[in-house]
Amino acid sequence: MSEASSPTACLIVIGDEVLSGRTRDANLQTLGRRLAAQGIALREARVIADDPGVIAATVNACRAAHDLVFTSGGIGPTHDDVTAAAIAKAFGVALIRDRRAVACLAARYAPEDLTPARLKMADIPDGAEPIANPVSAAPGFSLGNVHVMAGVPRIFEAMLDDLLPRLPGGAPMLSRTVAAYLPEGALAEPLGAVQAAFDDVRIGSYPFARDGRLGAALVARATDRARLDDAVAALGAMIEALGATPLPDTDPRTRFE
Amino acid sequence: MSEASSPTACLIVIGDEVLSGRTRDANLQTLGRRLAAQGIALREARVIADDPGVIAATVNACRAAHDLVFTSGGIGPTHDDVTAAAIAKAFGVALIRDRRAVACLAARYAPEDLTPARLKMADIPDGAEPIANPVSAAPGFSLGNVHVMAGVPRIFEAMLDDLLPRLPGGAPMLSRTVAAYLPEGALAEPLGAVQAAFDDVRIGSYPFARDGRLGAALVARATDRARLDDAVAALGAMIEALGATPLPDTDPRTRFE
Repeated sequence: MSEASSPTACLIVIGDEVLSGRTRDANLQTLGRRLAAQGIALREARVIADDPGVIAATVNACRAAHDLVFTSGGIGPTHDDVTAAAIAKAFGVALIRDRRAVACLAARYAPEDLTPARLKMADIPDGAEPIANPVSAAPGFSLGNVHVMAGVPRIFEAMLDDLLPRLPGGAPMLSRTVAAYLPEGALAEPLGAVQAAFDDVRIGSYPFARDGRLGAALVARATDRARLDDAVAALGAMIEALGATPLPDTDPRTRFE
Repeated sequence: MSEASSPTACLIVIGDEVLSGRTRDANLQTLGRRLAAQGIALREARVIADDPGVIAATVNACRAAHDLVFTSGGIGPTHDDVTAAAIAKAFGVALIRDRRAVACLAARYAPEDLTPARLKMADIPDGAEPIANPVSAAPGFSLGNVHVMAGVPRIFEAMLDDLLPRLPGGAPMLSRTVAAYLPEGALAEPLGAVQAAFDDVRIGSYPFARDGRLGAALVARATDRARLDDAVAALGAMIEALGATPLPDTDPRTRFE
């Protein structure tokens, strides 16, 4: 695949509330889009519980397997926020009160509101570098190839704004979509032939139903724009040969949600 | 924890489109809620690419680690639907054309529409048992402790309707929430004390912002209803002691999304 030289990445979503179904994660989608634009291949995501041993073991497995690891969740002031301590354990370093993180909190809170619980958010692993949090002050942090961020989606996004420009990238993964009112069963064979002709383009097929009609959105992804355009042209010709009309995928109803 | 005797489970979401950010997964939330009601502890979820080797390795790791494994995605008719073949590989069995699955498809499609691509959806690992799909006919399947379902959310849910009554359960995980207009930093210390007093109740704290005010939703989960009620009473007393009013968590705005 053309992404062979891109850095690879993994996201670890930390939170009982995601596994219980109380909260629907939003950070995977945000990260996937932003990494694709930066030419980083998000290969895997894991959702795990607020359990220090599980977090440490998962971080160690993922940081050995991927160039970059991102985490979301578990860095607040309450007892169920155990991520920073677990990351310190994973790396075998101490959890220390970081003076830069304390300064971020001191700039936000009056001295009488800088409680022990809030100061806990300034405890990060020894050697970690803070990630700025313009929303609610308490920073994330980077340690080695592991980047630890908040679970609240708008804070996670704000931390990405600070972090991503500092990370290495690759050729951006470009994506184009062509949709058609054709059931997948009718286009599967010629689609397989198009995929076989473009081994440097990754083509996915995603069914949808709109106004009672079945269709499919064909998503082509590649780093080479000319090859991507050629693949999209081939998909359009295929759709016309099947007696249908290629549609741009600009309508959210072409998604099965 | 009180869920020690519950079966444990893992979900594997299979799909490039989830990792790229094109599609926001919905099946984890659905499964998490339904398993909690059935007393099955969803311990982990993984999101992986449409890659047969990755799928097989992940399924083998997860089926050894958990009582139950669920997968979603990759069982359609197109070239990127590689889940069934990958599961067969993981178990070291052949992929065979299942006559029951063929019958499901034959009942839905006219003979001339029963194309090779559609018949591919009747190819399941040798020894697997079909999972009914009332939405679009092509079945999922169970093999050992691995249960393979569609990625399209309404088909995934319909397959759960067929599958879950056949699976073992445990004591349902009960959940109650109390919210308050208190920032997490103000309640973290007394909340930790309540958690320490209820080691058979798992308490999570989730911040929210509503109308410009900060608050937190405190979620208590346990299998024992009396203990859960006692914990919720303790949380209410804690909130009142902090000068705030306990609110029932019936408003979706108490979620950070």
